[in-house]
Amino acid sequence: MDHCHDDSVRVYRPKGREPRIVCLGGGHGLSAMLRGLKRYTRSLTAIVTVADDGGGSGMLRRDLDMPPPGDIRNCILALANTEPLMERLFDYRFPEGALAGQSFGNLFLAAMYGVSTSFDEAVHRVADVLAITGRVLPVTNQNIRLEAEFENGERVLGESRIAYQKKELDCRIKQVRLVPEHAKALEESVEAIKNADLIVLGPGSLYTSIIPNFLVDGIAEAVAVSTACRVLVLNIMTQEGETEGYTGPDHVRAVLSHGGSHVVDVCVANNSPVPPALLDAYLAEDAGPVELRREEIEAMGIQVRTYPLLSAGSVARHNPDALALALLDTYETWAP
Amino acid sequence: MDHCHDDSVRVYRPKGREPRIVCLGGGHGLSAMLRGLKRYTRSLTAIVTVADDGGGSGMLRRDLDMPPPGDIRNCILALANTEPLMERLFDYRFPEGALAGQSFGNLFLAAMYGVSTSFDEAVHRVADVLAITGRVLPVTNQNIRLEAEFENGERVLGESRIAYQKKELDCRIKQVRLVPEHAKALEESVEAIKNADLIVLGPGSLYTSIIPNFLVDGIAEAVAVSTACRVLVLNIMTQEGETEGYTGPDHVRAVLSHGGSHVVDVCVANNSPVPPALLDAYLAEDAGPVELRREEIEAMGIQVRTYPLLSAGSVARHNPDALALALLDTYETWAP
Repeated sequence: MDHCHDDSVRVYRPKGREPRIVCLGGGHGLSAMLRGLKRYTRSLTAIVTVADDGGGSGMLRRDLDMPPPGDIRNCILALANTEPLMERLFDYRFPEGALAGQSFGNLFLAAMYGVSTSFDEAVHRVADVLAITGRVLPVTNQNIRLEAEFENGERVLGESRIAYQKKELDCRIKQVRLVPEHAKALEESVEAIKNADLIVLGPGSLYTSIIPNFLVDGIAEAVAVSTACRVLVLNIMTQEGETEGYTGPDHVRAVLSHGGSHVVDVCVANNSPVPPALLDAYLAEDAGPVELRREEIEAMGIQVRTYPLLSAGSVARHNPDALALALLDTYETWAP
Repeated sequence: MDHCHDDSVRVYRPKGREPRIVCLGGGHGLSAMLRGLKRYTRSLTAIVTVADDGGGSGMLRRDLDMPPPGDIRNCILALANTEPLMERLFDYRFPEGALAGQSFGNLFLAAMYGVSTSFDEAVHRVADVLAITGRVLPVTNQNIRLEAEFENGERVLGESRIAYQKKELDCRIKQVRLVPEHAKALEESVEAIKNADLIVLGPGSLYTSIIPNFLVDGIAEAVAVSTACRVLVLNIMTQEGETEGYTGPDHVRAVLSHGGSHVVDVCVANNSPVPPALLDAYLAEDAGPVELRREEIEAMGIQVRTYPLLSAGSVARHNPDALALALLDTYETWAP
């Protein structure tokens, strides 16, 4: 790779043209990855799950019968190029009263939805106000909910209830589905996937951020027939209430069982050790590092690339910059 | 007066330089006047009362311990030069749920207040986002309430309760005051008044929009010593719950008794007849046209100018354009 060093921003110079990158996910994992990728490419599309029904997003869903704005807000913020004040404002949470905990960015999206003809139009308009790099698309305009079925046959409806229920049952998630079952993907999302050079799944909550995108009609099909380099970013740690005890292959199998057997070409995984002090905090939550098990993944016909991706700090998360460079390196060097 | 005709906007060409105009008031009357004046001058300062405690503003006052944003929002909107979508968004009201009836512009101001060090800084920042002509200033940064004392000695605290109480008591308002009594004017407001060529009071609710500005320490004093042309715009109609039965001189006396005897040089009044069909609707609310009584006002040493100011439509309000031209004509032709 060839980097042009500059005081303010590093410019990634690909061998050919700038790759068209589509990222599918939700939550913190997706927005953090976008912060990294934004520095290296302008051809960036985030397709964001809209199954969240907790917190401020849940309140707006119930009150205004709209898709949840929270994950969208974080992606817009990650890609924003407006003045820092607008970004602080967008991320501001009201401290008290009827709006306690609600973020202004969510309300911005909700009000824009009120003066728009569709949710994706509102998202585009808010993205314009914040002058984002690339684009952010809700995976669907429909108001969908997530239902989990556990291995013991029990079911729970509502994304925000899944983790609690999983811990109560102490049982793995067998499958998640949408309610209503058939929601239609935005045509623009499907087109973006069709035209992509690099498709990135995750990192983030496996069952509530990554997989829900595959459940929307048209997404899994478009990814399956894509000739892009399709990368699953493995989570560094397992997650309480979703993936306790999951290995690398467990993550991959969950994605393939929901998205189809031909949606992943490469797994990108972290190879930096997680510091012991950090491990203790995760252990308290019944979480720990995801065991890669490279050969088991490769036996599924999926390549594995490892990079030092761990960020400094008190949480074992991907360093956005390192992850972006790892993804671009994977894209540049990958051969089907 | 000399007008340059243009397809898009009329340019007022004053004899000398563009007059520096300061408008004091609140409510619909102030914002409508600003919409008119904005077309003719860029040197425009709106000083806005912050005594409102009803509706969405009242909710935000109680929840977030902030001055009421509603009147400020309307003034910013009146002076905005951003795209129509931003203006529609700013004026959007949430239809349902916890936010029902709340306007997005109010929340915008509330969130900006949350990331600012003072209320007036938040107002300036929001005004910047909407690219306004001139500036909008809260009369004070303090969280003040309005108390009315009636002629029978009874009192009521809270702007939103005054009209109801007045109708219950069927008795005139003797005086209004602030609680706490001493609130400090913004230095910037006092400076604007000092440097003004034309100071405009009203139109609008006499006791709840116009007079409260005079109760803030520093405002009445600055207006009293100003050499500007100081105009009181007489309301076209009396107002239910505030000024039933008030004549022109009654309005003037109320202003002088709160602001001091040297705060008005000229009264500008409407001379278009109110159509009978409109009068009937007002009569049902115990309201009617304000009887000018020119000689009685002139006997107080105040000049009177009349213009055809009535707007077309179902409410007897000032035509913003006609009012702006009347004010500029008054300024141009006035001699102390």
